[in-house]
Amino acid sequence: MNAPFPRTAGSNPGPALDHVDRQLDASLERLFALLRIPSISTQPDHAPDCRRAAEWLRDDLASLGFQASVRDTPGLPIVVAHDRSPGAAALNAPHVLFYGHYDVQPVDPIELWTRDPFDPILVDAPARDGQAADRWITARGASDDKGQVMTFLEALRAIRAADGSYPLRISVLLEGEEESGGANLRPFLDAHADELKADFALICDTDMLGDDVPAITTMLRGMVGEEITITCADRDLHSGLYGNAARNPLHLLVEILSSLRDAEGRVTLPGFYDGVSPLPATVKESWDRIGFSDAELLGPVGLSIPAGEPGFSALEQTWARPTYEINGITGGYGGEGFKTVLPGKASAKVSFRMVSGQDPETIRAAFRAHVQAHIPPDCSVAFRSHGGSTASSLPIEGPSLRAALAALTEEWGTEAAVVGSGGSIPVVRDLQESLGMDSLLIGFARADNRIHSPNEKYDLSSFHRGTRSWVRVLYALASI
Amino acid sequence: MNAPFPRTAGSNPGPALDHVDRQLDASLERLFALLRIPSISTQPDHAPDCRRAAEWLRDDLASLGFQASVRDTPGLPIVVAHDRSPGAAALNAPHVLFYGHYDVQPVDPIELWTRDPFDPILVDAPARDGQAADRWITARGASDDKGQVMTFLEALRAIRAADGSYPLRISVLLEGEEESGGANLRPFLDAHADELKADFALICDTDMLGDDVPAITTMLRGMVGEEITITCADRDLHSGLYGNAARNPLHLLVEILSSLRDAEGRVTLPGFYDGVSPLPATVKESWDRIGFSDAELLGPVGLSIPAGEPGFSALEQTWARPTYEINGITGGYGGEGFKTVLPGKASAKVSFRMVSGQDPETIRAAFRAHVQAHIPPDCSVAFRSHGGSTASSLPIEGPSLRAALAALTEEWGTEAAVVGSGGSIPVVRDLQESLGMDSLLIGFARADNRIHSPNEKYDLSSFHRGTRSWVRVLYALASI
Repeated sequence: MNAPFPRTAGSNPGPALDHVDRQLDASLERLFALLRIPSISTQPDHAPDCRRAAEWLRDDLASLGFQASVRDTPGLPIVVAHDRSPGAAALNAPHVLFYGHYDVQPVDPIELWTRDPFDPILVDAPARDGQAADRWITARGASDDKGQVMTFLEALRAIRAADGSYPLRISVLLEGEEESGGANLRPFLDAHADELKADFALICDTDMLGDDVPAITTMLRGMVGEEITITCADRDLHSGLYGNAARNPLHLLVEILSSLRDAEGRVTLPGFYDGVSPLPATVKESWDRIGFSDAELLGPVGLSIPAGEPGFSALEQTWARPTYEINGITGGYGGEGFKTVLPGKASAKVSFRMVSGQDPETIRAAFRAHVQAHIPPDCSVAFRSHGGSTASSLPIEGPSLRAALAALTEEWGTEAAVVGSGGSIPVVRDLQESLGMDSLLIGFARADNRIHSPNEKYDLSSFHRGTRSWVRVLYALASI
Repeated sequence: MNAPFPRTAGSNPGPALDHVDRQLDASLERLFALLRIPSISTQPDHAPDCRRAAEWLRDDLASLGFQASVRDTPGLPIVVAHDRSPGAAALNAPHVLFYGHYDVQPVDPIELWTRDPFDPILVDAPARDGQAADRWITARGASDDKGQVMTFLEALRAIRAADGSYPLRISVLLEGEEESGGANLRPFLDAHADELKADFALICDTDMLGDDVPAITTMLRGMVGEEITITCADRDLHSGLYGNAARNPLHLLVEILSSLRDAEGRVTLPGFYDGVSPLPATVKESWDRIGFSDAELLGPVGLSIPAGEPGFSALEQTWARPTYEINGITGGYGGEGFKTVLPGKASAKVSFRMVSGQDPETIRAAFRAHVQAHIPPDCSVAFRSHGGSTASSLPIEGPSLRAALAALTEEWGTEAAVVGSGGSIPVVRDLQESLGMDSLLIGFARADNRIHSPNEKYDLSSFHRGTRSWVRVLYALASI
């Protein structure tokens, strides 16, 4: 650290890795400060918290030498930061744009949390066979995505401390509407394409494969979110006095929702599978080599039988097959005891996960037509869109992918895998379409992190070795 | 009122009717005091309020010359009162037991109330074509059942003021678990059969037929209430990462709930209609004579198409056909915005309304078997009973029915009708089985009273003319 002269960007990650190890406690303190901000983007009363999270990140990026700013949108703000140091522009190395999000999911059912979701804590993790003892960072956003974002920022901090500068040119983009289907990112990218364009993007919002197998994700499903509200009578009725004669919107809802999926798990919405191709043989072979069993995916959450179409492994069902899920139903009385109510209204939130070849708006239109056809003339239905995104496919070969795989393999001591993901990260497609950039999706989350659920956690090893991984990946990418 | 000597029980209702008219404001004040007590029986934190309501009624009955007491049960207390005056035992007139309930339904969705449900108010009712101006008493319980109970107590007060005693022997039984399927009434009846046995019961918990057509109800549906909770994964999951492979309990729930009813409204639970007979021709003829159209039943709540089995009028569908209703579904995210959750659990409350010939426990068992058969081996279901009651049929002729019909016809100036009801009043069957007593079901509620719904109301005319009706009915019954 006591270099007598300004260094040029080094190619040896050793000093930065040492810094990561020595400064882990301080890194955790910064992460905890960010986790304490309840930046729930889908709930409008948390908008000031979202802005606070953006400002916190802007300040942290400024402390890392970036020109950082909080940029307004019609919705929640976006943080943009660039390394504008003279040396950066002169480097013969790629320019990368790191993307992450500072917003988090709602916390309900709050009663299932063992402590305040915004009061982060480090607890001992349950022992795992043949694994080193670990600890868990527990809080909403610990994994998705604040913990993952901070692995990158802490890696930058370590590199800057060790080398005084970065080995490649870096920009950062952190949005606040990833969890709320926000429509404001794409227009922002389009409007600032010149400023944001880089050689490729780095995204830290995905899982590893198994506990200690690092992975780069190259296939992501798209999503259509819809909410329907069916209205029958103009008020809640007594189910005894009116039941049978007055239409029950919950009857309509269960008829409609069950008519979209057959007993074997196949989606029956007309035209749903149009354009869906079989998995390319090379991809299927590489996934088969991974050897991740149904039991490994389902066992940790207490299940054993894949629920999707027969003939596909649980892995394929989630990574490569489209699906329809019911995300919530609300109607009638849900409290303690019983109420003989025949509700006037009932509603449901549903989503379709899509693969390449499916168009979100076509599927949304087919869904709405299907629902509408089930509504009797004296009842009505209202639709609300909760966003839509096309599936993404990224290159499964190339110098940046190879360099990153090698760096991850070195850090974890296990060969890094190329995988798919059932989730949707719409920004991947947006970056392709708006800025012509592919992304490297490198994440350190684990399948049992309970993201979107009570008691979300991020393993301390994910945070620590994730930070170390970024140090290695950045040095590796500087040399391609 | 200045009679120089003690009167014997009179047979002229005139003075008591005058008293009802003159004292209406004071009667309303007493009703409002009772309505201010939030005696919600299904919510355990309101148990003290339920006891307060029972004590209030005990005190009021004591003020009417009754020996009144609040009697403990394993659940909520029961009010019992008897007219023990020496003259009562000597009367050559029937002994009647009046039944009512002091408990009320929950108030949610509270946000749909225009004011505090337990702060009663009298407001102008919307004008109705060809009808005198009316006012509405608005509060939870205004109609079901506090307003109806108080018509009887205020009639007693008027008779006592006018005559000094009652023209027949009267006992009163007011329970506090009618709205919560309470299992404590029947054991109480059985244990106190000698004390409670009378010639017949009077119950004020039913509707008139149309706005100003008085009615006596002689057919009531029974009910089975069930709650099911389906558990799949041991936690909520991310619907992207797990969707398709991990079983969604909401998918199971909508499959199961929709499989119980066909597109035409027929219940498809195996054996459901076993034992159900066609409506007796005499009953059907009398109902046809009433000429109550589908539009008259459904129009006021914004509907027009009967939802039950084809071939039955809306009236028959609610009064004489069994049905299955979904009373509530809870699962996944129901808040603002969207949450890509795949819930671990989902639950529903359902009820079956039954007619004569159907056995509640047989239907409960068939339902549970049907549900259980749909649950995959790696998921589970838990059942919770919310009570069951058999349908009731009461005599459609006899001296007490004839006397009561005549008294109602005289008060309302329109021929009183003999009707059915889709609701369940389990006490009718309990009184038959435990005490060998039939009941006269005379009520003054209107179909638009929003019982069990936000902004429940009771027309001032229901309260005022209902009280007058009881005065006439009691004098008429004294002479049979």
